[in-house]
Amino acid sequence: MQDALLALTRYWTERGAMVVQPFNTEVGAGTLNPATVLRVLGPEPWRVAYVEPSVRPDDARYGENPNRLQTHTQFQVVLKPDPGNPQELYLGSLEALGIDIHAHDVRFVEDNWASPALGAWGLGWEVWLDGLEITQFTYFQQAGGQTLDPVSVEITYGVERIMMALQGVDHFKDIAYAPGISYGEAFGQAEYEMSRFYLDDADVETQRRLFADYAAEARRLLDARLPVPAHVHVLKCSHTFNILDARGAVSTTERAKAFARMRGLAREVAGLWSERRAELGHPLGTAELPAAVAAPTVFSTVDGARTLLFEIGTEELPPHEVTRTAAAVRRALADKLAATRLGHGEITTHATPRRVVAVVAAVEPTEPDAERTVRGPRASAAFDAEGNPTKAAAGFARGQGVDPGELRRFDVDGVEYVGITRTDVGRGAVEVLSGILAETVAELRADKNMRWNDPKLSFSRPVRWLLALLGDTEVPVAVSTVAAGRTTRVHRTAPEPVLTVDTAEGYLDFLAAHGVVADQSERRARIVAAAGELAASVGGRVDAEAESALIDEITNLVEEPNAILGGFAERYLDLPAEILTTVMRKHQRYLPVRDADGALLPHFVAVANGSCDHDTVRAGNEAVLRARYEDASFFWRADLQTTLADMKAGIAKLAFEERLGSVAERADRIGAVALALAADADLSEEDTATLRRAAELAKFDLGSQMVIELTSLAGTMAREYARRAGEPEPVAQALFDMELPRAGGDKPPATIPGALLALADRFDLLAGLFAVGAKPTGSSDPFGLRRAAAGVVSILRAHPTLRAITVPKGLSSAAERVRAQGIDVPDTVLADVAEFVTRRYEQHLLDAGHPHDQVSAVLPLAAAPALADETLAELAQRVGDPDFAALVAALQRVRRIVPKDTASGYDPAVLTEPAESALHQAFVKAQEAAGATLSEFVPAASVLTVPVNTFFDEILVMAEDPAIRAARLGLLAAIRDWAAPVVDWQSLDV
Amino acid sequence: MQDALLALTRYWTERGAMVVQPFNTEVGAGTLNPATVLRVLGPEPWRVAYVEPSVRPDDARYGENPNRLQTHTQFQVVLKPDPGNPQELYLGSLEALGIDIHAHDVRFVEDNWASPALGAWGLGWEVWLDGLEITQFTYFQQAGGQTLDPVSVEITYGVERIMMALQGVDHFKDIAYAPGISYGEAFGQAEYEMSRFYLDDADVETQRRLFADYAAEARRLLDARLPVPAHVHVLKCSHTFNILDARGAVSTTERAKAFARMRGLAREVAGLWSERRAELGHPLGTAELPAAVAAPTVFSTVDGARTLLFEIGTEELPPHEVTRTAAAVRRALADKLAATRLGHGEITTHATPRRVVAVVAAVEPTEPDAERTVRGPRASAAFDAEGNPTKAAAGFARGQGVDPGELRRFDVDGVEYVGITRTDVGRGAVEVLSGILAETVAELRADKNMRWNDPKLSFSRPVRWLLALLGDTEVPVAVSTVAAGRTTRVHRTAPEPVLTVDTAEGYLDFLAAHGVVADQSERRARIVAAAGELAASVGGRVDAEAESALIDEITNLVEEPNAILGGFAERYLDLPAEILTTVMRKHQRYLPVRDADGALLPHFVAVANGSCDHDTVRAGNEAVLRARYEDASFFWRADLQTTLADMKAGIAKLAFEERLGSVAERADRIGAVALALAADADLSEEDTATLRRAAELAKFDLGSQMVIELTSLAGTMAREYARRAGEPEPVAQALFDMELPRAGGDKPPATIPGALLALADRFDLLAGLFAVGAKPTGSSDPFGLRRAAAGVVSILRAHPTLRAITVPKGLSSAAERVRAQGIDVPDTVLADVAEFVTRRYEQHLLDAGHPHDQVSAVLPLAAAPALADETLAELAQRVGDPDFAALVAALQRVRRIVPKDTASGYDPAVLTEPAESALHQAFVKAQEAAGATLSEFVPAASVLTVPVNTFFDEILVMAEDPAIRAARLGLLAAIRDWAAPVVDWQSLDV
Repeated sequence: MQDALLALTRYWTERGAMVVQPFNTEVGAGTLNPATVLRVLGPEPWRVAYVEPSVRPDDARYGENPNRLQTHTQFQVVLKPDPGNPQELYLGSLEALGIDIHAHDVRFVEDNWASPALGAWGLGWEVWLDGLEITQFTYFQQAGGQTLDPVSVEITYGVERIMMALQGVDHFKDIAYAPGISYGEAFGQAEYEMSRFYLDDADVETQRRLFADYAAEARRLLDARLPVPAHVHVLKCSHTFNILDARGAVSTTERAKAFARMRGLAREVAGLWSERRAELGHPLGTAELPAAVAAPTVFSTVDGARTLLFEIGTEELPPHEVTRTAAAVRRALADKLAATRLGHGEITTHATPRRVVAVVAAVEPTEPDAERTVRGPRASAAFDAEGNPTKAAAGFARGQGVDPGELRRFDVDGVEYVGITRTDVGRGAVEVLSGILAETVAELRADKNMRWNDPKLSFSRPVRWLLALLGDTEVPVAVSTVAAGRTTRVHRTAPEPVLTVDTAEGYLDFLAAHGVVADQSERRARIVAAAGELAASVGGRVDAEAESALIDEITNLVEEPNAILGGFAERYLDLPAEILTTVMRKHQRYLPVRDADGALLPHFVAVANGSCDHDTVRAGNEAVLRARYEDASFFWRADLQTTLADMKAGIAKLAFEERLGSVAERADRIGAVALALAADADLSEEDTATLRRAAELAKFDLGSQMVIELTSLAGTMAREYARRAGEPEPVAQALFDMELPRAGGDKPPATIPGALLALADRFDLLAGLFAVGAKPTGSSDPFGLRRAAAGVVSILRAHPTLRAITVPKGLSSAAERVRAQGIDVPDTVLADVAEFVTRRYEQHLLDAGHPHDQVSAVLPLAAAPALADETLAELAQRVGDPDFAALVAALQRVRRIVPKDTASGYDPAVLTEPAESALHQAFVKAQEAAGATLSEFVPAASVLTVPVNTFFDEILVMAEDPAIRAARLGLLAAIRDWAAPVVDWQSLDV
Repeated sequence: MQDALLALTRYWTERGAMVVQPFNTEVGAGTLNPATVLRVLGPEPWRVAYVEPSVRPDDARYGENPNRLQTHTQFQVVLKPDPGNPQELYLGSLEALGIDIHAHDVRFVEDNWASPALGAWGLGWEVWLDGLEITQFTYFQQAGGQTLDPVSVEITYGVERIMMALQGVDHFKDIAYAPGISYGEAFGQAEYEMSRFYLDDADVETQRRLFADYAAEARRLLDARLPVPAHVHVLKCSHTFNILDARGAVSTTERAKAFARMRGLAREVAGLWSERRAELGHPLGTAELPAAVAAPTVFSTVDGARTLLFEIGTEELPPHEVTRTAAAVRRALADKLAATRLGHGEITTHATPRRVVAVVAAVEPTEPDAERTVRGPRASAAFDAEGNPTKAAAGFARGQGVDPGELRRFDVDGVEYVGITRTDVGRGAVEVLSGILAETVAELRADKNMRWNDPKLSFSRPVRWLLALLGDTEVPVAVSTVAAGRTTRVHRTAPEPVLTVDTAEGYLDFLAAHGVVADQSERRARIVAAAGELAASVGGRVDAEAESALIDEITNLVEEPNAILGGFAERYLDLPAEILTTVMRKHQRYLPVRDADGALLPHFVAVANGSCDHDTVRAGNEAVLRARYEDASFFWRADLQTTLADMKAGIAKLAFEERLGSVAERADRIGAVALALAADADLSEEDTATLRRAAELAKFDLGSQMVIELTSLAGTMAREYARRAGEPEPVAQALFDMELPRAGGDKPPATIPGALLALADRFDLLAGLFAVGAKPTGSSDPFGLRRAAAGVVSILRAHPTLRAITVPKGLSSAAERVRAQGIDVPDTVLADVAEFVTRRYEQHLLDAGHPHDQVSAVLPLAAAPALADETLAELAQRVGDPDFAALVAALQRVRRIVPKDTASGYDPAVLTEPAESALHQAFVKAQEAAGATLSEFVPAASVLTVPVNTFFDEILVMAEDPAIRAARLGLLAAIRDWAAPVVDWQSLDV
């Protein structure tokens, strides 16, 4: 292992990195070393590499867990500014470590990083070596609350993991550390003893005092304008906090206070550091970024219609951005081309993680010319009595550079003007495209955008090259520092990673010949086919439908799918299948292999990228899965030895949100709300008992080791552990159900107790977090409130019997419990939440293809989505019915005529005209017959159609006599108000 | 610089060292990293290399001092066990750093290391590169109070210093740290800010609390048997203590308590670690040491007398051991040869730092045979009446393996025995020598001895080779793991560092031909000559007499003197000459160059070892001196801006001894004692005033930066700063004088006020430290009490006018002040001290060649050495005088006859015999005439000689009449007691 550290050090120093020493106070990660967290601030260049033993008291396991240590070794590299090719440099470092990147499957898999405590975030990847995360690779965007300019690239190698993989050992202690000395021999005793200290023996009172002393010292040092020692003391604070946490000694309140304190100090340190560096005149100078490329001024011409090929080359995009970007580019090109006169054929786009390929067929060589009129003064003011041009006309002509004699007369809306006609000469296709393509790149945006070494561009990941050919002609494109050319890049491990492209035509085949399958559907089909074949070879199958989302993701993780069958030991099949598949899917993106009955087989399909050595990659992936399953088994066994009560007690230590308290407090609120909601749900006695018990146990599994590790198993493990603890099956099921739906498209809870708990969960989340001001903004929704709102809708739609539980009722009940914790929850906030939920519902309906007018019509019923659903269905049926249309028209007419503020109610005695009284009588009859739902309302209301129309035909509503006028308006308002709750009639477009 | 760290890392890993990271809590030195301080304990092998940023708050200088940093970089190597060639390995590492060790002067200069706080010590060197200390090289002997077995070699590189030398820069900030980044750019801000923290901004109360918390946590962790985290907390304690110290916040009491606490904890950590490793079964195994060489059994023979050459090759001995060892080996060979029958000629020995060469001329090829008698029973018991052998005789014969008939008769002291005569056949010279030489090596001992990778040997430094030739024949010698051969080693940088020696004859020439001057006097002569020539070349001279001790030392620091003239900037001559010469001599072993008037010239002579590139070595040495003078100038300027009062106030912060308090308290005691002693000194008014003022200022210069740096300038700087502060010259001189004599042979104080202060200083030291139990034992005399006692003697001898100040009086006065601090000083302790002083005086006299009997005779007067001196001189004159001899004999006779317990005093009336009354009358007369000193006593006492003798001839002292007997004895006792105080008559051998 020490050779690896030296090799990395050498590699990076040869690339201009300075080496510093690990920090000499305990840090949790290399990022916290001032060589990263302070140096990324400000304009100075910085390139550094160092080893950092990273101390995480919480990961202490007495040296027993094969993969977890209280101190693990990071190798940290910071490149400031981004050198433009950090991934390629990184791959070189793997080769320096002796890793054959041609044989292995090395991938950059989306993984973003944020440390609210440091006011820091960045976008990047975890780097996979045959499925094993070996490195965190981040473009640092903010630190200490400051936006970083220039951006730094941070590369953090997990050295023990890399070593275990390279040496093929299963326990960190077996790593050969130095010749003849294993890791365990060298550090085993320290690992055990420091674990003891962190987990068992550190004195809590002492550590609390230390924390306070460090924080106070940091405060004083900031006041003395000394950011360096202040930072040291923030680090000491942080480490001490981690010790207290590992000792289980941090209450929720303390945690919130401690974090706030550390965050505040860290931000001040960053700010002060920046100030001090500026005062010192930025001793290391100012980083230079690449210069902007000059805008093209010379454009080639082409003969005849040719294909446009435009490729935007990026670093690995997040899977969902691959699809999104392809669509966005297609749309942008279509719009922009439409705004020109350039003729063209079909526009298609294809995308992989590293490229969007746009192909526009049959682009004409030039725009046609176009005539254009330039209007001058009115004809009447253009010529004097003698017919000579006036000053105005002469001036206009001069301005246009023509002789006044060339002015012509135009008629514009009956007024005569003079003016001239200009011919806009059509531009060449290359010139037109040059501009369009540049704009397209400049306007690229993703859900989350980042910056790199380009001073202007911003996108999901860096744009590294552009390829633009019209037929075989280069289209010059200049976007900030990037210029298009005729080269593309294929796999980084290809013999020739950069290739010249001769012509636009047949580019997809060209790429395919170099191992890049640009078309997503083709990649997907290949994955499904290959996975199916591999599964069949061991008598199994891959459920392509059930795994659809995963397959979509995999499709966007590779440029050339290379499916590989792997296996794992049968003994792991003793674990609950959800655990196994969760690990496979979420962590590893492996496709589970099942037998004909759907039972798991001890196999999986991994999909590597491009060519690699199958045995090597298989072995690597199998080892990763084995380690993960080993971990899971460890947690599983540990949990089975823990009572549900103990797990439940454990969640009191888990912070939920600063003001809303611990997870235990939240679970208590949920239980209470669910029981309150049950009052409206007409439960059976059995369901009531089930609900009671489930409410007591709610969320207990968040205290299990398994769920702490694999949070997505919340609910699943609750059911599993509850069953094994002998709880009644309905209770187990309710605990499972209460976490449903986990995401859009997920099943809602099957049982009523489960549904009540699930609703209570989400009402609590929404009411509580909106109340503390944590509602989602833009792309930021850390607590998943959009998902929660969608969940409320989905549960209520799935359980029409719960329609009495409206959204406002649920929120109100939840708010009551939040208020009981002393938090102010204004009713306006609850109204906001309800509106927020309604918007989710509306989106659901629109996404499902319901006509906009019908959706709008039923939205007033969104407080009870099941009711709204029924109404919508009814509406859809009636839409073709002329009687219904007539009724709608009549009701809309009523609404249009009556001023908004008119109160309903009238004196029938005043209404003496026949049409008046007919309407009154029809209304009385309709009211008697009608119900509250659309289906109950329409038949009864239909009797109004004719009287309403007759009324309007024959009666002047605005009679001179105020009493009569009031009665007529009052009648109409009464009809309006009576119909209003059924649907929003005005929205209907029948 | 980072390349250098990598080069060292690579070099040592290639030699089997494991690399660990710097420790992640602040440490003051690489030694404190558990990878050293814990791993050197116990039997497990360990070979490690690491970088250690070493934090010394006290060295913080805001980055302003060119050579001093609060955090400097150590590169630490531990080799356990000693590989047998650590110096050679080390030199290889310098080459790996790009240092041309052939061009430079690389030397190993004695420097031993001890950390009482760690219960640790070791012997070794500082390694000099052209006079610059670049590395500490230590054979670790003890740690945590445990004797280390095996011994570890610890090599600590001072990386900044090496870099400054290699890069030729004058300020650490200018070191090129990485390409394009200087040390200052990389770390300058941290250096400034951490200096601010350590010196100014750390909160004292907080740090005190941290210290207590860390110590308590360490205590608990020890109780929990967790040495690793306990060690971490001891380190945190230590660092916090250092911060408090740098903040000037540690009182003497606190310091003592803190040290005791840390020492205790550190020892427990070490003990517990050892226990735990044993419990773990010593996971790294047990270090293997070389096997013992088999004792030789076959010995060659030689023809005729040949020269014996015996060379003991060592690593660099301390200079004083070079001379000492040569003498010891000569003596050992002489004694051991004398115990054999092997004939030989002259024995000579020569020595260099790396070898003792013994040459024995004309060694006979064999011992002559020898006859030996074995005595049996008495002849009378050997034969029966018939003349047949008795049982006894037969048994004896059988025991001797001879026939009874072979028994012969011998006369022993007139008694006749039977027995046999055996012939001891002489052994060959090679066999005889083999044993003797092995014993000589095994019995080598130095003042301070160490162990290395040899399981049995112990000496000042490791013995690495033996060369033993008798003529051209190898003498096989086996001492533990070392076997003699016919190879020797010359300079490590020689083209062939190991050479084969053909024959013993002419070996010194052989060595000389390879650049080794084995003869000390020749080396010395060469140094004197070369230094003189070089000095003359710049119009100066080297005062070989004044620099005699330094030249002696230099002689033993090199195997081949290579004198080099260097220079320094004239501006430094503005500094007091003592500063310049102190730096040259003590730190650098340079010979100062002076003009004809004795004034310093800006030149010096350095003596390198062996061949090297003069320009390189000169430049290096000049740079070192420049840096040191720059430092000195810095202190000088700083001190001149400080008042004497402020410096004096500063010494309150300097601890002297745990119970005796600070240096300020000691200075106060000294002043008080000096003033008290003055009562017996009959001072002039002016001297009294001088003494008063000097007593007030006593030791103020220990608070100056210069003396803190260069302690040997104490007194010198006091005079200098006092003068510049406008103190009267006599006061300045008294302050200078009070530190005299600094060492044996040094001048005593010239002035009476100075002498009084100097005496008070030493009386305080002796009384105080004996009282607290810190008296010297064996070679341990950390407070220099032997020197202090010698100083008392020397001062009192130099100032006969102070004879009224006897040693007991002085001690008593000092004890009074020590007692005033609440420390018990029993009178028996003072008697011990007085006896201790007397022993020093006795030794002086014997060393000066005074006859033993005369010395003994005057020792009763040692309380006043000046008086004793005069008496001794008187004695020496009288010794040949027959009258004096007769007087002595008479007085001795009196003393012999009178029982010890006889009281003096008698009734003259009882003494009626003529001889009695004659003696009585003579005694009365003598008493009237005699004085207390020998010169006043002898003439008067001489009248007793005849009466005494007559008395003894004629009078029976033990008369039957008790009254008469009592009177006679009383008279004699009176004479005895009267004469006793003059000298110890009994000792005289006249």
